[in-house]
Amino acid sequence: MVYLIRRERFNSAHRLFNPIYSDEENYAIYGKCANPNWHGHNYELFVTVKGEVDPKTGLVINLKDLSKLIKSKIIDKVDHRNLNLEVDFLQNTIISNENIIIAIWKELEVELNKTSARLYKLKLVETENNFAEYYGE
Amino acid sequence: MVYLIRRERFNSAHRLFNPIYSDEENYAIYGKCANPNWHGHNYELFVTVKGEVDPKTGLVINLKDLSKLIKSKIIDKVDHRNLNLEVDFLQNTIISNENIIIAIWKELEVELNKTSARLYKLKLVETENNFAEYYGE
Amino acid sequence: MVYLIRRERFNSAHRLFNPIYSDEENYAIYGKCANPNWHGHNYELFVTVKGEVDPKTGLVINLKDLSKLIKSKIIDKVDHRNLNLEVDFLQNTIISNENIIIAIWKELEVELNKTSARLYKLKLVETENNFAEYYGE
Amino acid sequence: MVYLIRRERFNSAHRLFNPIYSDEENYAIYGKCANPNWHGHNYELFVTVKGEVDPKTGLVINLKDLSKLIKSKIIDKVDHRNLNLEVDFLQNTIISNENIIIAIWKELEVELNKTSARLYKLKLVETENNFAEYYGE
Amino acid sequence: MVYLIRRERFNSAHRLFNPIYSDEENYAIYGKCANPNWHGHNYELFVTVKGEVDPKTGLVINLKDLSKLIKSKIIDKVDHRNLNLEVDFLQNTIISNENIIIAIWKELEVELNKTSARLYKLKLVETENNFAEYYGE
Amino acid sequence: MVYLIRRERFNSAHRLFNPIYSDEENYAIYGKCANPNWHGHNYELFVTVKGEVDPKTGLVINLKDLSKLIKSKIIDKVDHRNLNLEVDFLQNTIISNENIIIAIWKELEVELNKTSARLYKLKLVETENNFAEYYGE
Repeated sequence: MVYLIRRERFNSAHRLFNPIYSDEENYAIYGKCANPNWHGHNYELFVTVKGEVDPKTGLVINLKDLSKLIKSKIIDKVDHRNLNLEVDFLQNTIISNENIIIAIWKELEVELNKTSARLYKLKLVETENNFAEYYGE
Repeated sequence: MVYLIRRERFNSAHRLFNPIYSDEENYAIYGKCANPNWHGHNYELFVTVKGEVDPKTGLVINLKDLSKLIKSKIIDKVDHRNLNLEVDFLQNTIISNENIIIAIWKELEVELNKTSARLYKLKLVETENNFAEYYGE
Repeated sequence: MVYLIRRERFNSAHRLFNPIYSDEENYAIYGKCANPNWHGHNYELFVTVKGEVDPKTGLVINLKDLSKLIKSKIIDKVDHRNLNLEVDFLQNTIISNENIIIAIWKELEVELNKTSARLYKLKLVETENNFAEYYGE
Repeated sequence: MVYLIRRERFNSAHRLFNPIYSDEENYAIYGKCANPNWHGHNYELFVTVKGEVDPKTGLVINLKDLSKLIKSKIIDKVDHRNLNLEVDFLQNTIISNENIIIAIWKELEVELNKTSARLYKLKLVETENNFAEYYGE
Repeated sequence: MVYLIRRERFNSAHRLFNPIYSDEENYAIYGKCANPNWHGHNYELFVTVKGEVDPKTGLVINLKDLSKLIKSKIIDKVDHRNLNLEVDFLQNTIISNENIIIAIWKELEVELNKTSARLYKLKLVETENNFAEYYGE
Repeated sequence: MVYLIRRERFNSAHRLFNPIYSDEENYAIYGKCANPNWHGHNYELFVTVKGEVDPKTGLVINLKDLSKLIKSKIIDKVDHRNLNLEVDFLQNTIISNENIIIAIWKELEVELNKTSARLYKLKLVETENNFAEYYGE
């Protein structure tokens, strides 16, 4: 059982905001991250899959195929986008790292179940100081 | 003459857009960077100052003072902001790296002229692949 | 269950030294790290907490609160300090990465138990080549 | 139980290639990584060991000793080498990240069993986007 | 006059070798870098161009166009290649960082002269410790 | 004329302190960097040399020779040392980045004048946010 990790990146706008709260309440909870005019990040997504090594290829999964899958299912939908307004799988969600990573897991798990590998872990880098990790449970 | 460099960071939303062009023309020029719903970045700003070493302190300028100056004049105005909408020194400007770095130079040069150091160079990191540098000329 | 990671930094002096041994024995065990005039590092501390996502906020814990907690309980006590001489929670300890990380765990675990998150993992970066990790067990 | 990690680096040539396949088939599977004239990488190897902290030294294992062990058993054999042609412990193997990391595990596990620490995890960085991890099972 | 920098990467095999010398002499000069079975690197190329900011676009040059130019003229020819054997613009050259960077300059300068920007500087990262820079003179 | 850069690292203790001032004055000038019990850093030193490429070797200078020279003249004297107390070429100096980099320049320039290359620039990284650069003038 070997674990492979592929890094992909996306640059997006977002804000932390819960519509059930007033603007003042949102600022009290989220601080400047609640700015209604948005801010943004260079996100890095590390996708860890696990699987047996195929003795004919020496591979668990071809990392180029994994990259294409992540790009078509996730990156193309979030890169240079507004995460609050434009992403189908993030609708009706508070756009926190926690909720982004759970939503990406759901999108990727379905697709990876069709391959030789299984999704094991996601890591989302928002800044050099802030990270989220998720194992699907 | 020693050069000192201080790194500061800001996370902002922006878009590349010139209002004299139609949306189609903006997309033709800027691609996905023209997205009207914005995108964003973790910007890094490297400020290089130069000066003589004060023999009494061993310093050209105290880096904590330099950091405070950059924060109060630049970072506080751009961090967790929309660069197109909310920054006084970026009004009526296409929000490209080129124009951001020139505008920051103008703000910082005035302030640094009041100190023992002189502004020498700015470096703006937009992504791990894209950078701008400016020497004020 | 989502894991959040916050990075904080501190710059400290220390030496590896056990007072039960002679200077020669300390050098034999620790090499140049035993230098009685100290050396130092830019330490990076990665604090991983885990918890359920609060549906009202989308957060496990507010990372700014987590940062404040780490700063007040750890960073303020170790940054620009001598780890052998000046840190209350490192008294009577050999100042190895192993012992530093265990001591930081004890300090943080108590505080985090008062929050919505639980301490899961610590990572201490001493140099780009040397790291310690601890899970509290 | 504390985990210590040591990073070591090696710069090597390799190709992805299975001799049971034709050149066309190898290109179909591995793309440009099958280039018969080789390509190469700056590999980074992160070796995680775990163990109890020796109360007399404060150490699980001396990281300089761990570094020497990794260098003599692995790095000296792979650095500035052709991984397909010149490495005894990689003979008759498809030189994928998966197989490299499994082979390094076998070499290191034997040696680490003679020390106070146990091998826990390997991480192999091939590029800034591609990584493999292995826990020996 | 603003300077823009674009980073591109390539993974290649090479050796340091001058055919006018014997194998022993090559080893004496280049050490393990002379290994006839090759070794390799993850190279990073930083291309700095300079130019006036076009007031209509806010750009010196579109970084995506710059990236495409570097990829088509350089990266496609060197990535996953053997720099000694397979690169047209590196024929009859000792494959040192010095000669690689001069040869890349010649290729890029011609192409950039057709654009709104001028080539100003190249930086070639061979390892985290070894770099070359060239200004074309 | 090609520029080559070699990175070397050292881990040292120091304090900012001018003995002509009282402790209170030193704290007023340098803040926590004046701590009499020292603090420390992982310093990175980037040494840039320039020279003509020798057509017989393709090299300006052998980077391994440059590394050895930097290690024997600088790193061996500062690594795991107290910069205020133990370094011959830093005696009677306020141990600021400015003064460290000027003192290293003097040491290296003499030695490099005996080689085929000339010292062009030094860069000293104290933290990820603070840097000094020096060109010898």
